Amino acid sequence: MTDRIQKQLNFIKEIDKMKNILRMTLVSETRRRENDAEHSWHLAMMALLLEEYAVRPVDIAHVIKMSLVHDLVEIYAGDTFAYDIKGNIDKEERENKAADLLFSILPKDQEELMFSLWREFDAMQTDNSLFANALDRLQPFLSNVMTEGHTWKIGHVTKEKILWRMDPIRIATPALWQYLLDMIDELEKKGYISE
Amino acid sequence: MTDRIQKQLNFIKEIDKMKNILRMTLVSETRRRENDAEHSWHLAMMALLLEEYAVRPVDIAHVIKMSLVHDLVEIYAGDTFAYDIKGNIDKEERENKAADLLFSILPKDQEELMFSLWREFDAMQTDNSLFANALDRLQPFLSNVMTEGHTWKIGHVTKEKILWRMDPIRIATPALWQYLLDMIDELEKKGYISE
Repeated sequence: MTDRIQKQLNFIKEIDKMKNILRMTLVSETRRRENDAEHSWHLAMMALLLEEYAVRPVDIAHVIKMSLVHDLVEIYAGDTFAYDIKGNIDKEERENKAADLLFSILPKDQEELMFSLWREFDAMQTDNSLFANALDRLQPFLSNVMTEGHTWKIGHVTKEKILWRMDPIRIATPALWQYLLDMIDELEKKGYISE
Repeated sequence: MTDRIQKQLNFIKEIDKMKNILRMTLVSETRRRENDAEHSWHLAMMALLLEEYAVRPVDIAHVIKMSLVHDLVEIYAGDTFAYDIKGNIDKEERENKAADLLFSILPKDQEELMFSLWREFDAMQTDNSLFANALDRLQPFLSNVMTEGHTWKIGHVTKEKILWRMDPIRIATPALWQYLLDMIDELEKKGYISE
């Protein structure tokens, strides 16, 4: 077996750990915490189906690749709850260290590919990345719709804070933003959102 | 909200159920059963990283899309264990019914897209599909490597049967086949494979 194949298979085995990284969101039916592998798959499916709502044209294959890769660093850095202000302070430092460790398992060219996809996603500076980030906000939003606002209740999250968090949807997918605003009104009436 | 967006979001919410469809394979560290959403994500990552081993050129974006979609019908049809001869007899009928039900939640054009990706994967007649199927065999193989041959032990699976099941790897990715043969010898010595 070549050294290259060995490195690639070692990485593929290592990222099995994505299935153990728990997020705050719940799976709708069984109400257990969702993990990063499930979230990333769901996000990639959303990219495949919602491309038409991107306000500017996107390369959907590239968006899907970013969706698959964007949370890999959490294998070593852990998931940081979106509404946890303290946890978000040292998030960048933790994730940079994790990326160095994890991606260096791969051959050099693929290490660079992982870094490139991950950094592009996080920087939110390209149309592809803005669209991917909008979906990354919409996925847990839909999860909250299905679980009576589970993470909003945990974080005592107000309507104002949700709108701030969901802002990439307004920028990258205006048609979905309108849906979101209607839903937020409805969910507020149901008492899922803190005052 | 348009009828089209509503249909798409209904489908995206429905496929949350992929996270509850359990396979026979185990997640390496926690030793719980893997689900279809996790498996599909892992497969898509493998496509992204192992493209170079396809014996004929593939459209990797298309392979990734097939990987994301290939097990969706199991939401209604359930997972059929690869080495379960009885369960595989009525698999096609069950899965066709499931596909009709599930994909028709979507607008017509996207219903057709789902059918097309799923049927192409299952037919194994294109280079893209052969490559995707090879990875779909390799993913649980690697899982068995990490869990002392868990599903081989359950199914009393012999070396001969594993080689038959893994045959798409020989056809679509000869370089990985060589790795597999070496591994099987090693795993046989360790007693993970039935005689």
